[in-house]
Amino acid sequence: MVDFSTHLSRVRELLAEKGLNTLIVMGSSNIQYLIGSDAPSAAVVSFDDVVTLSSRLEFTRTLDEAKHGKHFTYLKEGDVAEYENAIFGGFYDALKKLLEGAGKGGWGYAGLSQETRRRLEEELGSAGVDLTKDFLTLRRRKDPSEVEALRSAARVAERALAKAIAMLETGITEAEVAAEITSCITRCGCEPSFPPIVAFGEHSAHPHAKPSLRKLRRGDPVKMDLGARVDGYCSDLTRTLTYGGCYGKFQGKFWAVLKAQERAIEIIKPGVQAREVHMTAVETLRREKLLMYFNHGLGHGVGLDIHEEPYLNAEATTSLLPGDVVTVEPGIYVHGTFGIRIEDMVLVTEQGPEVLTSFPKLLSL
Amino acid sequence: MVDFSTHLSRVRELLAEKGLNTLIVMGSSNIQYLIGSDAPSAAVVSFDDVVTLSSRLEFTRTLDEAKHGKHFTYLKEGDVAEYENAIFGGFYDALKKLLEGAGKGGWGYAGLSQETRRRLEEELGSAGVDLTKDFLTLRRRKDPSEVEALRSAARVAERALAKAIAMLETGITEAEVAAEITSCITRCGCEPSFPPIVAFGEHSAHPHAKPSLRKLRRGDPVKMDLGARVDGYCSDLTRTLTYGGCYGKFQGKFWAVLKAQERAIEIIKPGVQAREVHMTAVETLRREKLLMYFNHGLGHGVGLDIHEEPYLNAEATTSLLPGDVVTVEPGIYVHGTFGIRIEDMVLVTEQGPEVLTSFPKLLSL
Repeated sequence: MVDFSTHLSRVRELLAEKGLNTLIVMGSSNIQYLIGSDAPSAAVVSFDDVVTLSSRLEFTRTLDEAKHGKHFTYLKEGDVAEYENAIFGGFYDALKKLLEGAGKGGWGYAGLSQETRRRLEEELGSAGVDLTKDFLTLRRRKDPSEVEALRSAARVAERALAKAIAMLETGITEAEVAAEITSCITRCGCEPSFPPIVAFGEHSAHPHAKPSLRKLRRGDPVKMDLGARVDGYCSDLTRTLTYGGCYGKFQGKFWAVLKAQERAIEIIKPGVQAREVHMTAVETLRREKLLMYFNHGLGHGVGLDIHEEPYLNAEATTSLLPGDVVTVEPGIYVHGTFGIRIEDMVLVTEQGPEVLTSFPKLLSL
Repeated sequence: MVDFSTHLSRVRELLAEKGLNTLIVMGSSNIQYLIGSDAPSAAVVSFDDVVTLSSRLEFTRTLDEAKHGKHFTYLKEGDVAEYENAIFGGFYDALKKLLEGAGKGGWGYAGLSQETRRRLEEELGSAGVDLTKDFLTLRRRKDPSEVEALRSAARVAERALAKAIAMLETGITEAEVAAEITSCITRCGCEPSFPPIVAFGEHSAHPHAKPSLRKLRRGDPVKMDLGARVDGYCSDLTRTLTYGGCYGKFQGKFWAVLKAQERAIEIIKPGVQAREVHMTAVETLRREKLLMYFNHGLGHGVGLDIHEEPYLNAEATTSLLPGDVVTVEPGIYVHGTFGIRIEDMVLVTEQGPEVLTSFPKLLSL
């Protein structure tokens, strides 16, 4: 069970620090962070309360999913509806009414579009303070309950990957294997974090290959990238294996990618620049003369969003915090030939890196 | 095979009509409409050419998927890469270079964010003309090749739904049935248009229920909403059936929803207001005293996006065009108890409505 009271306390500390009374939050994963449901359109946090506003379509899902808070829906004038807690008027009218209840004082916002922010400022007659970055920084610091959810999500992904590997045989299609991965994750009561990637042979050279009816042949590399959500928290795991005795062809390159991953993971700890972690992999691949085939950032934060702060790439300006969970996923992609990527999830702790995924890396069938 | 030359001709007619030379297109489904791949970040259509610009990460997918056009990738200064057709500099620098090649004259854009539009206007030193609405209107008019893809996508959804129904038995979970749907669609070499909804009993009262470990019991209604993509084109199909002899309880309401759907479909033809189609269902449900349980719009356009123009709801201001494909999906949702939705895809033709989905509607197991 995710510890929402910790999340609310953090938000209230932020409000107090900024001298504000109310935070208006939009964006499905931001709202999920507060109440455990992504159904509402907006949430309003004050020192006493958390109140949400849902479209009519999603309102009953909010009622059934939210772990706490008071919940309202907005209806158009003339709508006929069975709900209590219905506010008539559009979204902005309803939000304005909720904010009247939230007491006087300054307001901040997180996750609002420019358009929504402007419209709200008009409605409320005062300027809000943009706390989006601060809010996303709170979300980076995974608490023990969130780490537990991420570990469970990693276990589900590993189970699905094991099933997928067990079914590899000459003639099976990428689509069949991808179907089994999704099926396994779904039967665990989870959603996939993203549509799984299963890529055989030359398809593995596309970082974001889509599963096709391409059949597995002896001598193919097999790249699989998958994840599951537990309580909204995403796992993300990639392995590349070789099928039908082709390991020799890839051996050198496989070890180079693995070395790039290991060196990058080793330096992970609080205070290290995100860019530096990326550059550690870059330098390893440069020495191996494979840098020209590494065409993406080394990794990304992972939590309620499959891609979130902090990003590990050449442009990153942030440094790692305790509680960050990041992927470390160097890859090389030789167009028309093959690709290799190895990806794990790493928790940043004061004691250094803790790898949350534990699936074997060297796999040759 | 989708007829991309028709799509390009339409865009060029639009440019000629507006007195412009070049159209800059962003948004994955907009780009897919032009070249058959959603991998590029931008496409530039001129009278001679269609040229795309992809991130390094997606470039080889563009090369392998695009049915025609010239393709470039943008790299950062200092990047080491194996690609021909690489332009060094950021995205905007690269786009500016491509536009120099596209010749002089005015430019239009479709699918750009405000931020991107502003940045491009700065880079190019001239204002662009917003053709987003015109472009989306072109996309509404499905040509025969697109209707064929939508029909195939409907067949795949129907096959998956038949499999799902065949596996219904006391004790099976929503998740297991959803897994089979996704698996069946994926094994056909397709992607799901969206994660399927499988909702038993009281869960069916959430319009957007998420499949859970809830087990099927005698007396449950079963709501399933699913779709597949063929060549990028989405199907969308919902059926609600009753399991274990509970049909009597729902009979009256089921027929009311079906009547609302049939009445709405009947009036569909070119020139009819989208709002009027919605209101036809509203009036039917009002007479049946069920309007308070109908909490969403009647339907939406469907094509390369699962939700696209035209929307059938109370706020709609457009009228139907020949070639529009829309869903017609009235539903009623009684919180804590049950929901019923029936959804089909309808092609708008000069001869009236042509229903593209043909799965039986009255199903009582």
